Amino acid sequence: MNLRYAIIGTGALGGFYGGKLAQSGCNVHFLLNSDYEYVKTNGLQVNSTKGDFLVKPVHAYHSENDMPACDVVLVCLKTTANNLLKDLLPPLIQKDTMVVLIQNGLGIEREVAADFPDLNIAGGLAFICSEKTGPGQIAHYDLGNIKIGAFRGDCTGRIEQVCSDFNNAGVPAEPSNDLNRARWEKLVWNIPYNGLTVVLNTTTDNLMSHPGSRQLVWELMSEVVTAARHCGAATDIEFAHKMMHLTDKMKPYAPSMKVDYDAGRPMEIQSIYTNPIQTARKAGYEMNKAAMLEVQLRFLQNSR
Amino acid sequence: MNLRYAIIGTGALGGFYGGKLAQSGCNVHFLLNSDYEYVKTNGLQVNSTKGDFLVKPVHAYHSENDMPACDVVLVCLKTTANNLLKDLLPPLIQKDTMVVLIQNGLGIEREVAADFPDLNIAGGLAFICSEKTGPGQIAHYDLGNIKIGAFRGDCTGRIEQVCSDFNNAGVPAEPSNDLNRARWEKLVWNIPYNGLTVVLNTTTDNLMSHPGSRQLVWELMSEVVTAARHCGAATDIEFAHKMMHLTDKMKPYAPSMKVDYDAGRPMEIQSIYTNPIQTARKAGYEMNKAAMLEVQLRFLQNSR
Repeated sequence: MNLRYAIIGTGALGGFYGGKLAQSGCNVHFLLNSDYEYVKTNGLQVNSTKGDFLVKPVHAYHSENDMPACDVVLVCLKTTANNLLKDLLPPLIQKDTMVVLIQNGLGIEREVAADFPDLNIAGGLAFICSEKTGPGQIAHYDLGNIKIGAFRGDCTGRIEQVCSDFNNAGVPAEPSNDLNRARWEKLVWNIPYNGLTVVLNTTTDNLMSHPGSRQLVWELMSEVVTAARHCGAATDIEFAHKMMHLTDKMKPYAPSMKVDYDAGRPMEIQSIYTNPIQTARKAGYEMNKAAMLEVQLRFLQNSR
Repeated sequence: MNLRYAIIGTGALGGFYGGKLAQSGCNVHFLLNSDYEYVKTNGLQVNSTKGDFLVKPVHAYHSENDMPACDVVLVCLKTTANNLLKDLLPPLIQKDTMVVLIQNGLGIEREVAADFPDLNIAGGLAFICSEKTGPGQIAHYDLGNIKIGAFRGDCTGRIEQVCSDFNNAGVPAEPSNDLNRARWEKLVWNIPYNGLTVVLNTTTDNLMSHPGSRQLVWELMSEVVTAARHCGAATDIEFAHKMMHLTDKMKPYAPSMKVDYDAGRPMEIQSIYTNPIQTARKAGYEMNKAAMLEVQLRFLQNSR
């Protein structure tokens, strides 16, 4: 059986992952906002280091009410827009629909689960450097692999199907049997780089090349690993070493929070900083460095 | 006996304090660099909340070699320029000369003492909001009191004379019998406000009005108080409360480090952050929050 996919949020993530699935022949339906007219007419252009391609025609929709119910909904919005899901999701849900939140941070699934008591919910972690560079224009710079883990409901078989579709589309994807751990491991990267590139107005390569900031990145990663372990995630310090090494090899990069800040959009402070800090605190651990970065980010956000 | 004063560094501090002494009839000799011609011709203008005045003529010099030896040398340079003192001081020194380092941070007197083994050295702490707004133009916004404490040599009587001259000139001045404590107490203010206004591109009033940054200011102050106590300074937390209260009542202010950063000048990171952090570490205390701020400041400094 072929899965029918809905993509909510056709930006840096949704445009790339939905585009790859559509390009490989999957049945993919895109919800678009400001780019709707452009994409309907011109298609979705993905410029990727692994090959450029154009998806045309695109199953493009300007309202969730015009979309068909789908087997899988990939939520690729910023978490700052998750208040919209209460309205966006119902028309797309049928029996057995699985919603995958391909988003950053912690505590997101719990919030959606509270609003949709019977929904099958999974979380997705995207390790990718990509950006929306214009209407219907997605640039893919580096990496791209994805991990999907069950949060609630009967997800296991469907997650395997989705990973299979991604792998067929050339996107390395694997199921995670420990979503809590996967989310904390993503934070090992997100917490140092997102906040420091904003506060210091820089990119990942500069943070890595200056010895002081490199050490601070490392200390933040170590703090996240310790917090993860307090919160039941069996992450170890080797993972942080791996993230340092990965970032050393990456092209100079402005993480999503830096792109959002520069564009005047709200930053994902709540899901990437506040939720993990509060979760760790409840588990008896203070993330002191992350907490100082959180204060700085909230100050900058409130100052605009 | 009337004291002969030399002012090294006729900026926000030296211009104000030297100007006040000269205005009150003291014998004051100013070393000037880029402003020499202007001040020689036009005098030194101090625009103060407590009354504007013009010092004219000014005993102005463009080279230390043209200056007379003095009884008291007030060093009002940024600590980032202290490498110049090796050349600047010798022509000004006679038997019994006292050099007062009216500068921010910790460990400054020790460095000068190493270069001048027989010199009487004191430290000065200026609690003032002032700025050089143009050649020979000093703006005085708020506060202005000064504390002077002996570091080495026979300073006690001379410090009392200097304080008396300041008080006669309308500058509240008092001797400190514990320079180490006075320096640490100045850091209770300097460490939070200097660094945070640079990193967050803001002024003191905004830091105080946003609850998160206000709390961070408080935590940094508490950290400095704890460090001070580890380093033998009997500062208590009441002093930090006093600094919070003082800053609440101050006009919106950009501390000197923020002014330096915006003007593209080097920041006093070494004396205000690195020296205190290292001194506390040797005493067994880690200033974690100040250390994170130090890394951020060094990154910003190195990025220009």
